[in-house]
Amino acid sequence: MHRDRFYTLSASCPDQVGIIARVTGFIAEHGGWILESSFHADEVTGRYFMRIEIKADSLPFLLAEFRERFGRDVAEPLSMHWRIADSAVKKRVVVMVSKQEHCLYDLLARWQSKELDIEIPCVISNHDTFKGFVEWHGIPFIHVPVNKDNKAAAYAEIQRIFEDVRGDTMVLARYMQILSPELCDALAGKIINIHHSFLPSFVGAKPYHQAYERGVKLIGATCHYVTSELDQGPIVEQDVIRIDHSDSPDDMVRYGKDIEKTVLARGLRYHLEDRVLVHGNKTIVFR
Amino acid sequence: MHRDRFYTLSASCPDQVGIIARVTGFIAEHGGWILESSFHADEVTGRYFMRIEIKADSLPFLLAEFRERFGRDVAEPLSMHWRIADSAVKKRVVVMVSKQEHCLYDLLARWQSKELDIEIPCVISNHDTFKGFVEWHGIPFIHVPVNKDNKAAAYAEIQRIFEDVRGDTMVLARYMQILSPELCDALAGKIINIHHSFLPSFVGAKPYHQAYERGVKLIGATCHYVTSELDQGPIVEQDVIRIDHSDSPDDMVRYGKDIEKTVLARGLRYHLEDRVLVHGNKTIVFR
Amino acid sequence: MHRDRFYTLSASCPDQVGIIARVTGFIAEHGGWILESSFHADEVTGRYFMRIEIKADSLPFLLAEFRERFGRDVAEPLSMHWRIADSAVKKRVVVMVSKQEHCLYDLLARWQSKELDIEIPCVISNHDTFKGFVEWHGIPFIHVPVNKDNKAAAYAEIQRIFEDVRGDTMVLARYMQILSPELCDALAGKIINIHHSFLPSFVGAKPYHQAYERGVKLIGATCHYVTSELDQGPIVEQDVIRIDHSDSPDDMVRYGKDIEKTVLARGLRYHLEDRVLVHGNKTIVFR
Amino acid sequence: MHRDRFYTLSASCPDQVGIIARVTGFIAEHGGWILESSFHADEVTGRYFMRIEIKADSLPFLLAEFRERFGRDVAEPLSMHWRIADSAVKKRVVVMVSKQEHCLYDLLARWQSKELDIEIPCVISNHDTFKGFVEWHGIPFIHVPVNKDNKAAAYAEIQRIFEDVRGDTMVLARYMQILSPELCDALAGKIINIHHSFLPSFVGAKPYHQAYERGVKLIGATCHYVTSELDQGPIVEQDVIRIDHSDSPDDMVRYGKDIEKTVLARGLRYHLEDRVLVHGNKTIVFR
Repeated sequence: MHRDRFYTLSASCPDQVGIIARVTGFIAEHGGWILESSFHADEVTGRYFMRIEIKADSLPFLLAEFRERFGRDVAEPLSMHWRIADSAVKKRVVVMVSKQEHCLYDLLARWQSKELDIEIPCVISNHDTFKGFVEWHGIPFIHVPVNKDNKAAAYAEIQRIFEDVRGDTMVLARYMQILSPELCDALAGKIINIHHSFLPSFVGAKPYHQAYERGVKLIGATCHYVTSELDQGPIVEQDVIRIDHSDSPDDMVRYGKDIEKTVLARGLRYHLEDRVLVHGNKTIVFR
Repeated sequence: MHRDRFYTLSASCPDQVGIIARVTGFIAEHGGWILESSFHADEVTGRYFMRIEIKADSLPFLLAEFRERFGRDVAEPLSMHWRIADSAVKKRVVVMVSKQEHCLYDLLARWQSKELDIEIPCVISNHDTFKGFVEWHGIPFIHVPVNKDNKAAAYAEIQRIFEDVRGDTMVLARYMQILSPELCDALAGKIINIHHSFLPSFVGAKPYHQAYERGVKLIGATCHYVTSELDQGPIVEQDVIRIDHSDSPDDMVRYGKDIEKTVLARGLRYHLEDRVLVHGNKTIVFR
Repeated sequence: MHRDRFYTLSASCPDQVGIIARVTGFIAEHGGWILESSFHADEVTGRYFMRIEIKADSLPFLLAEFRERFGRDVAEPLSMHWRIADSAVKKRVVVMVSKQEHCLYDLLARWQSKELDIEIPCVISNHDTFKGFVEWHGIPFIHVPVNKDNKAAAYAEIQRIFEDVRGDTMVLARYMQILSPELCDALAGKIINIHHSFLPSFVGAKPYHQAYERGVKLIGATCHYVTSELDQGPIVEQDVIRIDHSDSPDDMVRYGKDIEKTVLARGLRYHLEDRVLVHGNKTIVFR
Repeated sequence: MHRDRFYTLSASCPDQVGIIARVTGFIAEHGGWILESSFHADEVTGRYFMRIEIKADSLPFLLAEFRERFGRDVAEPLSMHWRIADSAVKKRVVVMVSKQEHCLYDLLARWQSKELDIEIPCVISNHDTFKGFVEWHGIPFIHVPVNKDNKAAAYAEIQRIFEDVRGDTMVLARYMQILSPELCDALAGKIINIHHSFLPSFVGAKPYHQAYERGVKLIGATCHYVTSELDQGPIVEQDVIRIDHSDSPDDMVRYGKDIEKTVLARGLRYHLEDRVLVHGNKTIVFR
């Protein structure tokens, strides 16, 4: 599991002849060792996407200088949107929960075993159900009650906490509240949610009951970026599980949990490893 | 693959104490050997469903007498809806196609190898594309053109043909026309369709293009009974396949075909083996 | 999720005419309300299997009397092997772990949320890694070190503990030791293991590395009963996940964990709900 | 589905700094437009793999000149194994069958609809079962009986036919004979087989019966290159389907067919599109 330090360059730009050559030419010129690389041309929009992992110590300069040189020599001429991440800098993930165990336990087990090599600066909840469990793990637990009347204030508080702890990503691990539009906008592209249906089927509340009513033969879960439009953000990952006529809505809820936690963990991992590039309301996921 | 002749009893009735005992008691009393049996209680509606296969030669009388006695002694007192089928009587399946190969080839291969042990009295199409192929198999091919102006007449003609050939089931094997409401009503519960999306997502035309636009990560197909409401009938079977950002709508069409033909074949088999009991707009499928 | 108290009858006997009628006749005679029922005839061995859930308060007598009457009137004449369980009596599950988090966290989350409605009288481990975590949940943690020299004694001790806490089932939640043959025999049919491959492929140590060497395109996990022959016991549940050439053995280990915990949880649930009937080295699983 | 003509370059070489830069630099220098590109570094063996699609008319020279220049300027200095294919040149696929319909019908439906855009110069069989069906499609059918005594001669004859029709690929579409070692060697890397189990489980004859005996809960199929060691060649694609205790070996055979034809078609497509690079006894599949 041990792997050398590396940088992850992810970028997109208008498609043209020679993009890969210029980008990888720059890297090769400085002796950069490419560990992994993925490219994708969107033929409809004419936009080009890429993700490249470079061994950190193969380069003769640090990230700041890489940023400056690459920006000037490659990114600017190609009108590129880009970012570069350092595997040595752990991402800071704020976890939001309500009263359901499964995603929280699952994330903490992955964090505990370093499968998810992240910092969790705090867990925020609208209930205090998991205070003891979270604190036992040495993670601060912050109870921010949310009700009809304090919504705006509560989400302003949550945003303040996120900024305070220098959060990179916010994960809604079955957080059963609808965020304020202000928070969605402020953290656009940084909030990951797990919705308990195979979107676009069964948007909104009680999707398993909707599925039961429609009589579908598979149920699913969807990991997506949160936008101010409910359950309409770019989809990162989805999966399904087979059910049949003998399954009640409660059975579906139970089966669904297994899909939810797995899909959330996969989607979160893609996001944290900079494998996800958002393009309009869709995602490129370089697995 | 060879199996003795058997009868398939399928039934539903209001739930009460002793249903299985009465039904299987009647069968046991006459020495009937049960090969397979399935039961389901719908707790919400309080309705009870069952499917029982009985070895034909274990009974001391023929089907007509079974019908009379069982009807009088068991079904009537239990207010049962029921039917019984004889495995020795092949179902007669009318296949409807347009211009796409995959489901037609797939069904004929299954028919050819006796995996589907049915009669196909004719294939009906709004094009003559597959005339030669179908006739090579010794199956009559009937070309019934459909256009804006002749719709009612065309479907009346198709209904007449179905009745003429004593069809039991009509399969829309990617038949790309919307049937008339009259035909849907006349053959209610007898028409099986394959829709090329994971319903209820992407109802109507060009579902793969809709899926591409929404950026889903799995695409699917749905086998359902046709009702006069487009793509809203009771679902019999569904399945999905994984796609990613590199797949164009054309790629999805290609992947989708593999799901479509498999899901249609499974759904059709369940229907033909009397494994499907319709309950409102849902199905019980005793696999 | 709340459901009335019920009894679960599971049984097998030589196949003959009238088994269902006799069993359900007995139940109906006493006003017993059947919630769920499943039957299976094994045509090769001529053995018949069943599982029936009966609403407890629909019967006019308690379980002891049911046992006596049913045994005398039905089970004995049919030469039946049978058992009956009471949903009000929680099963007692002893969990065995080593140093891997994923199955333990997963089981405790399900126990915490009452998805698994069981007692966990203790967790036993050959390491003390999870002492704090387990005890935080209010569950006793027992450290039984195992090494080459104390194997027999250690497993005798574990068996003593299991009996002492009146365990019904022992779950090896990625317990990385091979149990003694004595323990396997003493608790035959009561020990559930999760093996991290799709058996019968890749028996024994480091299955993901074996899978990597062979270049398979899917990896899996298998939940099975433990017998004294390594990884050869009756299979209860299996599942797989897709991998590709870019996945290292470490990646497979990571993907595999998601399959392992889900497959173990499903298999364990089937076992605890008396849905599994062992027949030779195979299982009937009435889902 | 219509797409411009393109060349597919697939290659492998010892890993070093700057491979992508050199290869894509050469292409960019000549104005070559890259449609799709995939790269993989095998960290264990230190070998590097790639596949690049280049729009044909973006290059200022024809394939012969590309071959000469690229070979001299890039491939040789990098000690590269490489090949380049022209999408305008259809691959010639010889199909081998015995008496089972499903894979043959499936392949011909894909060929008919141009989903598989190939030439089928002939179908060869050890039986004459499908003579009429194949010839109806306008494809020559060649009956080469094989028995214990004529094995060597029969396979020499088949090899002669393959060379005669200038075959590129041979597909064993449930061809139920073991090829001669001479044929395996002569056409190494060109023969694709579908084995009806999830290898490495259940090598050899009657795998579904083996699966039934072992009591597995999923069955599968494996598409692999044929080598002289039975069912041991590099795996290209695999998939599985869920079964349960109620499924007889005959049911498994039936379910299995759906997996077999889909897995074969996927594996064949990857091979024909030069997406498969063999590395030792494993494959890199650039999907």
